[in-house]
Amino acid sequence: MSFVKGIERVALAVPDLDEAQAFFEQWFGAVFQPEETIEDMGIRYRPFTVGASKMELLQATREDSPVARFLEQHGGPGVHHITFEVEDLDAALAELERRGGRVAYRHTYAEGVTFEGYAWREAFIHPKDAFGVLIHLAEKHPVTDASDGP
Amino acid sequence: MSFVKGIERVALAVPDLDEAQAFFEQWFGAVFQPEETIEDMGIRYRPFTVGASKMELLQATREDSPVARFLEQHGGPGVHHITFEVEDLDAALAELERRGGRVAYRHTYAEGVTFEGYAWREAFIHPKDAFGVLIHLAEKHPVTDASDGP
Repeated sequence: MSFVKGIERVALAVPDLDEAQAFFEQWFGAVFQPEETIEDMGIRYRPFTVGASKMELLQATREDSPVARFLEQHGGPGVHHITFEVEDLDAALAELERRGGRVAYRHTYAEGVTFEGYAWREAFIHPKDAFGVLIHLAEKHPVTDASDGP
Repeated sequence: MSFVKGIERVALAVPDLDEAQAFFEQWFGAVFQPEETIEDMGIRYRPFTVGASKMELLQATREDSPVARFLEQHGGPGVHHITFEVEDLDAALAELERRGGRVAYRHTYAEGVTFEGYAWREAFIHPKDAFGVLIHLAEKHPVTDASDGP
């Protein structure tokens, strides 16, 4: 049994959101949602669906953004992270620890901050631990009063 | 609208299947299916589920395998490809071409060859075209007479 519900999305780091969006729309008929900005992480991102699945495109807003570092280290665009959705982040992290797992960091948003109409609680597993993959563990809850984004 | 049904799986290239399997089992409670070998591509792979989602681990069977080249060029393990499932590969490729898209190559199996109990028809879009992501387009059909693998 897994405490992971499944892959919520696959996120790609790109140098230019417009160019990458045009590609996924043109080639695959992807449907994009509005752009969001996470200023304290230095990223802008655009979620989209391709068929029944969700993906997102990420672009750095400043040079010290983890997305800027990814593009430099990776030598170009590519898969930045995979989001594993969990029901309850605290329980998931406790279970992960019990299994000998290790969380690289936990990212906390200010009260009331939402993205895509959801409140998020999240943590990350380092790619060095996870065979080159940055794993994003996320618990998300729809919010009714959706004054979106920060 | 998209001719893509959704992400069928995310495949990771690793140097050692056993080690990577132990990690995904231990940390996330992943459930593995039997290993398959695709000899003409020089790969062994193990499909698995994590929650409701499918992933797979890939290992090279020889030095000229695309997975061996990936590990060298990428400098280690990581996301090797994403599989987009399509209903009808011929129709999907015709639609992709109509949209200005480009297929890097189409891979054809001998009649009767199955993997995981499915007959597969597949093509690949080059990562240079797709923002660093190797996109695997796959049509799969369950087979009743499942003498699995080649």
